Amino acid sequence: MERDCEQMQELAAYEKLADQVAQTTEGLVQDGFTQAPYYKCLVAEVPADQACRGHTLVGYALYFFSYVAWKGRAVYLEDLYVMEELRGQGIGSAFLRVVAEIALQNKCSLLNFVVLSANFPGIDFYQAKGAVDLTKLEGCHLFRFEQEQLAKLAAGKGQNVTAPPSQ
Amino acid sequence: MERDCEQMQELAAYEKLADQVAQTTEGLVQDGFTQAPYYKCLVAEVPADQACRGHTLVGYALYFFSYVAWKGRAVYLEDLYVMEELRGQGIGSAFLRVVAEIALQNKCSLLNFVVLSANFPGIDFYQAKGAVDLTKLEGCHLFRFEQEQLAKLAAGKGQNVTAPPSQ
Repeated sequence: MERDCEQMQELAAYEKLADQVAQTTEGLVQDGFTQAPYYKCLVAEVPADQACRGHTLVGYALYFFSYVAWKGRAVYLEDLYVMEELRGQGIGSAFLRVVAEIALQNKCSLLNFVVLSANFPGIDFYQAKGAVDLTKLEGCHLFRFEQEQLAKLAAGKGQNVTAPPSQ
Repeated sequence: MERDCEQMQELAAYEKLADQVAQTTEGLVQDGFTQAPYYKCLVAEVPADQACRGHTLVGYALYFFSYVAWKGRAVYLEDLYVMEELRGQGIGSAFLRVVAEIALQNKCSLLNFVVLSANFPGIDFYQAKGAVDLTKLEGCHLFRFEQEQLAKLAAGKGQNVTAPPSQ
């Protein structure tokens, strides 16, 4: 698992969001290796003589099962990462293929994920495989309450705002 | 559950995406009432003498537990809906408060959700409560493989594309 956390840092650095990583190896173990894990993770491993920077674990795909109310079961691919030196060799495609297989085995009809608008190679890759950009197509904006705001919500603060018509 | 499916149609109509609803009451029951449910749902109920269009079930919040690799456990609020006639009375705020409480009880530090860019009242509502727009802030674009593309991925089609640098 140590490797995974290091790769998360690499992915974060690639996306210029390294300061946002608040995850620890302990947290990943605790959340992923319980009876009801919060996520599942595939890893790509190469033989020892092809190790990359000393590592045989060279990529990961982190996903979880989710739900789209109007359409049913879905898989949410949270991260897909391949070490820079090994890109372009089909590892990313293999991850997608396996995740798609898992989705279908679990009767999921959708695979959702987020790509940063600045990640042009990633967008090209996914669109070439038939993914649609719901942010462009339907105007889907991802919103988030961070921990501090979440605590305020739970405490009932800011309740003087009128209810939303919908999400 | 019949009511919920009808409300989903109402929400879809509000978002001008009514043609996208492929869900059935049976599907909702099957996916939500198993030992490992794919989603959880809160409902808002009013006394019989305050029924709205004959319904006492006047809103719902559909969510599931998710994961943000860099930050840990999260709740994903898939739908939040209040019948039009009863908006502005705090039902949406109450839903958010309860969902936030559930998130914190389950050691989730984030609450994620999608709002359509055309849903101005919704955006105002969530931002007034402290939500941040990650699509604006970080360029997060939501992508999706629909069922047909998912089947192609699983069958290994389109594998001649190079691996992505990252998601």
